[in-house]
Amino acid sequence: MSGPKHSCGVVGFALNTNIAPYIFKALRVIQHRGQESAGVSYHDGETIETIKGPGLVHEVFLPEKIMAIDGKVGIGHVRYSTAGSKASMNSQPITVDTLHGQMALAHNGDITNADELRNEYLKKGWAFLTDSDSEIILRLLSKEPNCFHDPVKAIKNVTSIIDGAYSLTIMIGDRVFGVRDPYGFRPLCVGKLPEGYFLASESAVVDVLQGEFVCDVAPGEVVEITPESIKIAPSRSAGNKAHCMFEWVYFARPDSIMDGRETYQVRRNIGAILAQECPVDADVVIPVPDSGRAHGLGFAEASGISYEEGFMKNRHVERTFILPDQKQREGAVSLKLNPIKSTIKGRRLVVVDDSIVRGTTLRKLVQMLRKAGATEVHVRIGCPPIISPCYYGVDMKSRDQFVATNRSVEEIAELITADSLGYISKEGLVKALDLPENDLCLACVTGKYPTNIPGESHRFQSRLDSEF
Amino acid sequence: MSGPKHSCGVVGFALNTNIAPYIFKALRVIQHRGQESAGVSYHDGETIETIKGPGLVHEVFLPEKIMAIDGKVGIGHVRYSTAGSKASMNSQPITVDTLHGQMALAHNGDITNADELRNEYLKKGWAFLTDSDSEIILRLLSKEPNCFHDPVKAIKNVTSIIDGAYSLTIMIGDRVFGVRDPYGFRPLCVGKLPEGYFLASESAVVDVLQGEFVCDVAPGEVVEITPESIKIAPSRSAGNKAHCMFEWVYFARPDSIMDGRETYQVRRNIGAILAQECPVDADVVIPVPDSGRAHGLGFAEASGISYEEGFMKNRHVERTFILPDQKQREGAVSLKLNPIKSTIKGRRLVVVDDSIVRGTTLRKLVQMLRKAGATEVHVRIGCPPIISPCYYGVDMKSRDQFVATNRSVEEIAELITADSLGYISKEGLVKALDLPENDLCLACVTGKYPTNIPGESHRFQSRLDSEF
Amino acid sequence: MSGPKHSCGVVGFALNTNIAPYIFKALRVIQHRGQESAGVSYHDGETIETIKGPGLVHEVFLPEKIMAIDGKVGIGHVRYSTAGSKASMNSQPITVDTLHGQMALAHNGDITNADELRNEYLKKGWAFLTDSDSEIILRLLSKEPNCFHDPVKAIKNVTSIIDGAYSLTIMIGDRVFGVRDPYGFRPLCVGKLPEGYFLASESAVVDVLQGEFVCDVAPGEVVEITPESIKIAPSRSAGNKAHCMFEWVYFARPDSIMDGRETYQVRRNIGAILAQECPVDADVVIPVPDSGRAHGLGFAEASGISYEEGFMKNRHVERTFILPDQKQREGAVSLKLNPIKSTIKGRRLVVVDDSIVRGTTLRKLVQMLRKAGATEVHVRIGCPPIISPCYYGVDMKSRDQFVATNRSVEEIAELITADSLGYISKEGLVKALDLPENDLCLACVTGKYPTNIPGESHRFQSRLDSEF
Amino acid sequence: MSGPKHSCGVVGFALNTNIAPYIFKALRVIQHRGQESAGVSYHDGETIETIKGPGLVHEVFLPEKIMAIDGKVGIGHVRYSTAGSKASMNSQPITVDTLHGQMALAHNGDITNADELRNEYLKKGWAFLTDSDSEIILRLLSKEPNCFHDPVKAIKNVTSIIDGAYSLTIMIGDRVFGVRDPYGFRPLCVGKLPEGYFLASESAVVDVLQGEFVCDVAPGEVVEITPESIKIAPSRSAGNKAHCMFEWVYFARPDSIMDGRETYQVRRNIGAILAQECPVDADVVIPVPDSGRAHGLGFAEASGISYEEGFMKNRHVERTFILPDQKQREGAVSLKLNPIKSTIKGRRLVVVDDSIVRGTTLRKLVQMLRKAGATEVHVRIGCPPIISPCYYGVDMKSRDQFVATNRSVEEIAELITADSLGYISKEGLVKALDLPENDLCLACVTGKYPTNIPGESHRFQSRLDSEF
Repeated sequence: MSGPKHSCGVVGFALNTNIAPYIFKALRVIQHRGQESAGVSYHDGETIETIKGPGLVHEVFLPEKIMAIDGKVGIGHVRYSTAGSKASMNSQPITVDTLHGQMALAHNGDITNADELRNEYLKKGWAFLTDSDSEIILRLLSKEPNCFHDPVKAIKNVTSIIDGAYSLTIMIGDRVFGVRDPYGFRPLCVGKLPEGYFLASESAVVDVLQGEFVCDVAPGEVVEITPESIKIAPSRSAGNKAHCMFEWVYFARPDSIMDGRETYQVRRNIGAILAQECPVDADVVIPVPDSGRAHGLGFAEASGISYEEGFMKNRHVERTFILPDQKQREGAVSLKLNPIKSTIKGRRLVVVDDSIVRGTTLRKLVQMLRKAGATEVHVRIGCPPIISPCYYGVDMKSRDQFVATNRSVEEIAELITADSLGYISKEGLVKALDLPENDLCLACVTGKYPTNIPGESHRFQSRLDSEF
Repeated sequence: MSGPKHSCGVVGFALNTNIAPYIFKALRVIQHRGQESAGVSYHDGETIETIKGPGLVHEVFLPEKIMAIDGKVGIGHVRYSTAGSKASMNSQPITVDTLHGQMALAHNGDITNADELRNEYLKKGWAFLTDSDSEIILRLLSKEPNCFHDPVKAIKNVTSIIDGAYSLTIMIGDRVFGVRDPYGFRPLCVGKLPEGYFLASESAVVDVLQGEFVCDVAPGEVVEITPESIKIAPSRSAGNKAHCMFEWVYFARPDSIMDGRETYQVRRNIGAILAQECPVDADVVIPVPDSGRAHGLGFAEASGISYEEGFMKNRHVERTFILPDQKQREGAVSLKLNPIKSTIKGRRLVVVDDSIVRGTTLRKLVQMLRKAGATEVHVRIGCPPIISPCYYGVDMKSRDQFVATNRSVEEIAELITADSLGYISKEGLVKALDLPENDLCLACVTGKYPTNIPGESHRFQSRLDSEF
Repeated sequence: MSGPKHSCGVVGFALNTNIAPYIFKALRVIQHRGQESAGVSYHDGETIETIKGPGLVHEVFLPEKIMAIDGKVGIGHVRYSTAGSKASMNSQPITVDTLHGQMALAHNGDITNADELRNEYLKKGWAFLTDSDSEIILRLLSKEPNCFHDPVKAIKNVTSIIDGAYSLTIMIGDRVFGVRDPYGFRPLCVGKLPEGYFLASESAVVDVLQGEFVCDVAPGEVVEITPESIKIAPSRSAGNKAHCMFEWVYFARPDSIMDGRETYQVRRNIGAILAQECPVDADVVIPVPDSGRAHGLGFAEASGISYEEGFMKNRHVERTFILPDQKQREGAVSLKLNPIKSTIKGRRLVVVDDSIVRGTTLRKLVQMLRKAGATEVHVRIGCPPIISPCYYGVDMKSRDQFVATNRSVEEIAELITADSLGYISKEGLVKALDLPENDLCLACVTGKYPTNIPGESHRFQSRLDSEF
Repeated sequence: MSGPKHSCGVVGFALNTNIAPYIFKALRVIQHRGQESAGVSYHDGETIETIKGPGLVHEVFLPEKIMAIDGKVGIGHVRYSTAGSKASMNSQPITVDTLHGQMALAHNGDITNADELRNEYLKKGWAFLTDSDSEIILRLLSKEPNCFHDPVKAIKNVTSIIDGAYSLTIMIGDRVFGVRDPYGFRPLCVGKLPEGYFLASESAVVDVLQGEFVCDVAPGEVVEITPESIKIAPSRSAGNKAHCMFEWVYFARPDSIMDGRETYQVRRNIGAILAQECPVDADVVIPVPDSGRAHGLGFAEASGISYEEGFMKNRHVERTFILPDQKQREGAVSLKLNPIKSTIKGRRLVVVDDSIVRGTTLRKLVQMLRKAGATEVHVRIGCPPIISPCYYGVDMKSRDQFVATNRSVEEIAELITADSLGYISKEGLVKALDLPENDLCLACVTGKYPTNIPGESHRFQSRLDSEF
């Protein structure tokens, strides 16, 4: 995808040793899921302590901060960027003191009935100290009378109230839980180390910590981890699942395996199916790095067209920088991605990217390629046109921003100045994922939402959200 | 006083122009009341925005942050230092969203029944997101059903529940209020500018903003300020007041006038009375800078002994710094204060300081003076021996730390190696303040508390806290 | 290559407008050539001003620093990391005041007779304020009596004294020059903008600034740029050239074209020749990202073995971070590179990397791949075994560090635990570069140096360095 | 003095243990002499290493930097602020490599023939890497052939060439020297610790390190310190001395004793003489803190008028801060100094300050006092009118900036809106210092310079600079 788009990431640890080096490294593994803030809450034997703040993991956790962490259980979070001055106050984990003890929570996802719940409890006289969904979840949890005696039941009670997408790591006193919403929108898995168990948004954490992959937390499940064991509470299901296809298409690391599907392999499949669905006569396939590479390789193999790197990506310009000169600012895309001429010149290109949201960057890339001598530029996209907002944790909130809103594929092609444009079909994407369509959230490309969203269509016409 | 000891400071503004430069400067004027964190909440016309963080005012409010402030009403806070990793989460103002709108609060003081209230509401199922008294006050306020319709009544309802010391600035929506507890422990005053009205912990803010002093907020009063007017809600009184004598003795700026008494003048009176109560035959009076200067001048004039500066104070070593070498660390006091030899050598000295808590620094100063050639060192202290903890906002919480606990004046003199030691009497202090004893809080030197503190004696034997 | 290995980068501008946004962006384009420090010297109409310091370009040039740059001519530098506390004092450009004016210089390369020259001038009573080669060059230049009247001649006089590798940008007063050593070890090119001319280490700068590529500075040439023109001083040649092959193998951006050869294409050729020279029966070719990708693609095409991404590279861990736990520190490689299981599992792999210096990282990668299920791991390297130190600007100074020192290929294979290991031959590398062997510096892989290095063999037996 | 005005400070250590904690603390003691940058050069047994940079001592020497210092000999420097972007490159100590070894130098003062020497050596083909006087001194020293064999002779040779003000600490290899110019413009003294000897700009360092004061370095002397001894090279005198009177009037700490005169005592004397020379009928004497306090006390005692503190000084606003609103910016003085009303109101005041340069701040203070209710404001200044620039290290370079240039005392009084204004006479100042007039530099108030300054008058008409 050409624009920045982010989710969040969570981890949780229950070890027989200090979690400090483990949780620090785990958060760095999932740093791609959120670069705005990072935080850790740990139980030091007496109370829950929290270290959090704005910045990348290694900026928040300077050596003296890592050294300060002293606990065998804890949870952590990386957070994506949001606008506004309140940003610094929304860093996670968040914590509460209740009658029976302290709790902490880290959240990946969006609660779709957050406003409704917020209003409901505002009406009951509640006051909210932050504007985050996470406070709602944690406050509901702390309202459960048996939260500390039967935390699994308390958590289940809360999950029966909140709708939408959530993968959570929770500390209740010194006990650590992982929770995944009944639809399984966002990933969450369990890993094992010689020193204990842990939870993480992505399985790559297991690899880097040199642990063993135990299992995904199934949709609707509550998992408690201890240094010695995991306990899985009998799953309550939503009937069907709704794994966000975007996790594989764009968010997740290529080396992560979520719900049995490896990101890299899914992207490769997408590319291959895209080649079948939208064939083109061309000389070379090039990806938009980094996320388009696997798509591109799949396309190349299936089409028989040779694969090449066509763009150099500058590693050092991740953070945008405001330049005093408007004219130079326009060149910001070229500072990030620059064509490799030998690949481009005199060639008919297939440019493969993971998805299109606004289309502005892609338009610049196409023009850049033409300037570098491409004779034809055919764009192929590994995700159907995005036409509907996401209410489940992806920062695509408004139809206004989507280039595909009220535009035909031909019109979009013209807009981005491509010779041709092809999107994978919804069916193709489902096939690439090799999961039942009914177990996927495809709302952003179909407009059919897996849960009730006021003003939007439901995935299954006959089904009411209250039925499960 | 020889050790650091802090309170907090609050301000509030309602102007017909952007408050940014005013509130920034106002917070810098009261920076001495808290150096750990600083913050501002302002109403931008639609919502309440907050900028806050650890550091001095000018460190938190870098130019781009000041520029970001865009509101005509707002409140601000400077906070004293506390131990522990939660420090960063307790910076103020704190804010809440309620059914009827947003509120923000900044607090100077300590709520004596905070634990009790916290427990009461924990038992009702509340969860607290911070461990600060301020959250309790703000949550209680947000529980008031008519908070936005009749804020004064709502505030009064809350003040009937909370005990202890509080000077508050509160924003309810875009309305700004100042509140002072019924005893008036901590100061709060109102000032006027051509652009509107403001609240501040100390009157020095009025001077520096080149405004006019309007009045002190009277104990028990609720004041609403607008750009055009102030409205004072009929005072509800505690019968007697309990102004913290320490504000004049140590905390407040010498140029501030609180409840009709200027800090400098009170200190000067203290010095004069001390000279009468504890006379001594000596050659020269020297103050411990900076707070001891006025005391010293009063002593000198009353005693006829000449006044000199005896210590050089290094302005650049306010923040302590951990040195790798223990031996060198011991010299830290001398890095801060070093004797001026011509004043000291061969002289019989009267050293005047505002108060003694632990006595450790004073002991080092006495020894430093002897090494510099003083023939006699007589110590005179502008505050009676501190023997009881403060529950109203001064960081003197434990009897263990007081050198005067279970020690006679002679024993303390010996401990600090002084030739003689004299404290002002309680009566002398009251006289210096020129306020009725019953309108002062002298608990730390008498052990008699103006409000009910479990396990401590009450100021008026017959009086119950519930009576007023 | 698996370990960090760096050079430096230089730029120079002569425009009819303020260089600030251009030089900032240009330095970011070549940021990969040096991450330790960055700097700019510019002529503001009266004097040469310099802004420089430790950090990445965007860290040194915060907005207010960019805004402070106000000049139409200037030079810039990015510097690689060196050990030692003097690091901060060696950032470039360096400047001198001379009788006739001010000069500034930025340097990429190593002067091989620096110690000799330093000693010669130390004996003449000179004192050096830094320990950098650059000071020597600049001091020699400032010794030239006609430096400001005939700068080209002065520069030539200096280049007749200094040996080794140097691509320089120089400001003499407000005139800007580019200089390349007679062998052309390091790259340097000229670009054109509507606003004037510029010099840069790599041609990618031309692309990103949306300028036109004019030419490479030829070995031995001195080029003066103005907003309107370039003047090239008649080249003095070393007879043969000695372009560092490592620029294409590892340093330079894939999208840069140096001396007529594009990095990406050269790497692709290397891969193809490597496939012919060291064939292997395998299932899949995977590169070590990022620099190994082009090599891998070339190998795959030539061998007919399919190409896949086999490693996920974490973008956020460029800067190493010292962890408190030794055991965890060992996992640092896996934090950076993690296998993609679907590519690896049950496969016979060809892993293609650009070069091997120490071999420690590669050993870890091989083991990581085996753990991920690879049945065979064959390593192919796009550069012959490195056996001799570099004296021309690459941070490979000691034979002790080279895994290939006194080891056969089989022994190295065993050490890195690979099933087989193949290096491209020198001949193959030369062919891939498509440049005469005599115009390349291959000293690190042949031990034959293009210039006289005491204790090392010369490239041409019969040739004396003094002959040209 | 009402405006900031600075010099620099130097230290040097030769101990039998690591100098790190000692030199760090010593630099903090003299922090008031320079707040722009700080640095230390130490000999680690093999080479001279340097740590320096912009900021206060504790900002440059963060704990890890202090820990990095590992040497038994070293020199240090604090530097005053100068305008311009080159500031960061002029931090000291500066170091050179010469044929026979390394040297480092730290400098307090100004070399009056620096431009001349610079030009002389520029003509000889030298190039200067900085624009500081210190480079000239160090380069001249390094030119001395026997610098390492007979350093004292080499230093003397250099001091016979350079004119003006200099107190230096020098490291030649691992030997440490202190040097003071023949006129003794700037202070320098020797202290003794159990661990060895040290040099420092002010004697307060001796106190804080709890060492023994050994002696001042006499004008013209070269002193070598070792852990066991000091060696003083036979003094070469300028005949008369020229101690800068401003050191006592404003720069130096009140607790420092320089050339036998304690700052505090001199200031007190000044105040007393001022009272005799410019008597006034008034109610109270108030100082401009901090430097005016001793002057004020002297004035009060001599005049019999009572002394009071009249201004509160805000400790937290040392660094100026640019406010977005011009109107508010004007209030910056009041943020720093605010009147204490009880002292001021209805009173006839004598305001005592150390000196007047521009007069702008003083004008604001007078107006502030009137606004606070002063009935009369009489200003008394402890230094004669400043009418001539300083060429010896005080940042008063231009006659344009002096309020006293071409103005009578009455005109100045009117300008600063004072009821009366009195300056101490030159004779009074000399008397207060109790040193022969011929041993003082009074150039800034007399226009007669102790050394030859082109275009300025010489102190002794008949004397040529070349005579001594």
